[in-house]
Amino acid sequence: MAQVYDKVALIGLGLIASSMFWAIKRNGLAGEVRGYARSEKTRETAREIGLCDVVCDSVLEAVKDADLVVLCVPVGAMSAVAEEIAPALKAGATVSDVGSVKKAVVEAVGPHLPENVHFIPAHPVAGTEHSGPNSGFAELFENRPLLLTPDEKSDSQAVARLRALWEGTGALVEEMDAEHHDLVLAVTSHTPHLIAYTMVGVADDLQRVTDSEVIKYSAAGFRDFTRIAASDPTMWRDVFLSNKEATLEILGRFTEELFALQRAIRTGDGDHLFEYFTHTRAIRRGIIEAGQDTDAPDFGRVKK
Amino acid sequence: MAQVYDKVALIGLGLIASSMFWAIKRNGLAGEVRGYARSEKTRETAREIGLCDVVCDSVLEAVKDADLVVLCVPVGAMSAVAEEIAPALKAGATVSDVGSVKKAVVEAVGPHLPENVHFIPAHPVAGTEHSGPNSGFAELFENRPLLLTPDEKSDSQAVARLRALWEGTGALVEEMDAEHHDLVLAVTSHTPHLIAYTMVGVADDLQRVTDSEVIKYSAAGFRDFTRIAASDPTMWRDVFLSNKEATLEILGRFTEELFALQRAIRTGDGDHLFEYFTHTRAIRRGIIEAGQDTDAPDFGRVKK
Repeated sequence: MAQVYDKVALIGLGLIASSMFWAIKRNGLAGEVRGYARSEKTRETAREIGLCDVVCDSVLEAVKDADLVVLCVPVGAMSAVAEEIAPALKAGATVSDVGSVKKAVVEAVGPHLPENVHFIPAHPVAGTEHSGPNSGFAELFENRPLLLTPDEKSDSQAVARLRALWEGTGALVEEMDAEHHDLVLAVTSHTPHLIAYTMVGVADDLQRVTDSEVIKYSAAGFRDFTRIAASDPTMWRDVFLSNKEATLEILGRFTEELFALQRAIRTGDGDHLFEYFTHTRAIRRGIIEAGQDTDAPDFGRVKK
Repeated sequence: MAQVYDKVALIGLGLIASSMFWAIKRNGLAGEVRGYARSEKTRETAREIGLCDVVCDSVLEAVKDADLVVLCVPVGAMSAVAEEIAPALKAGATVSDVGSVKKAVVEAVGPHLPENVHFIPAHPVAGTEHSGPNSGFAELFENRPLLLTPDEKSDSQAVARLRALWEGTGALVEEMDAEHHDLVLAVTSHTPHLIAYTMVGVADDLQRVTDSEVIKYSAAGFRDFTRIAASDPTMWRDVFLSNKEATLEILGRFTEELFALQRAIRTGDGDHLFEYFTHTRAIRRGIIEAGQDTDAPDFGRVKK
């Protein structure tokens, strides 16, 4: 595959940045990839496992000659990082990010950047419950959506170039309005995560059922929730604080529906339950047909 | 493995019964297994795929010489089936079931059975989102809990024999009080299913986000919910109607916690969110260490 950028800088070296590095290298998408992480331990780990061509001890050193700078830090840290790197950015460079919310990132990052830099927000809709520099792998983005949220002022050539990089990793690139992005993700990701965290918390706190019982009998459904409830707490705190409006809207609808089902249980309205449980099967079928999940029983979990 | 029963009858031929048949055959646990299903189409399918040694067109024919009769029908159908088979049961036979709730089954089945029959309720805590006679496989119960809920009047030899059958399939057999069973399962299974159904329903109904968007971007968390929300609607309707009390209790706790998190989002209380999201990680670790789930990212889903 052809090289898309000469020099790329990855700021923050967690699951997404490390997967980007391996995907960029495997596909020859950049000449040199520099990395920076605030934590010295993370930088050490990165050096040990060969993550990034150069691991820099200063964020300014990492970004100074870069044609593309990707902010891979939690959403709540984006503003401070943008402010810090702004003076060192090369004229004509592209700045992007991988945050799970977009409106808040545009507001946090945009104002800090100089006029001669292209800011194109991005969100790879891919991830696992694991985090940190060791958790990345080159295939993470394959066949997964990558959403770009440029606005009307975005430079079309800069957008096309960023698109080419992500397509090179195997991602399915699409463009979307930032506000719509945040609503879609509130439904498909943010609210499901909050609900999963809540259910796991309830199980953990219930005095009459021990943790050991919860663990032993988790295969009956509960364990599906525990995977996403094991995701990075800092990242998720920031997601909820920065996509407040859309998350609260979807949560409102969720509790409305849940109360209706709860009422059907209380009053013994079996027809309401049966109809509800029947129409939710179609969505699963669509997800499998779109290649976004496996049809193997139990997700094809490894046999013990 | 040694034969445990001479003749076994499986009433209802869905995921659990078909998995039982394959597990019994593979491990030589019974001399002959007869099967019955109310639907003619299911009986035809069973005959085509060799499910059961004999597929009977009448439930009385299936149970009449059986040493063990296992009711594998939805919980709401148990009472009628028990009433129908009662006159044909062999003296000294054991009747069991595989229902996901136990108190309601005891109340529905017990009164119909003659004095000279042992009734020992059971619940294999195993399953997949697939249903029907084609969905079974011999390994379903391996390393999964099997809960027996005998009472103080239960015959200990009959209990030991049923235990031996289930241990022969690879299940981890434990005994538990029926009421406690229903509370444990309300936490680990019933409430998670209701929540998953609700979330999928909300996503399906939201006008401003299309189904195709929900499907495309589901890998961000939502797809984990869709698996259990694709489970058999009849079975789940019956579970909620028959485990009303415990489910409503856990739902009450769930909404209480959810409202506290919702309030933290609204007021911007990041510390509350961070702490909550941190303590839920330990449960996931316990589940993986107990061999009840895989640690592979994304459940080790098959790569497309």
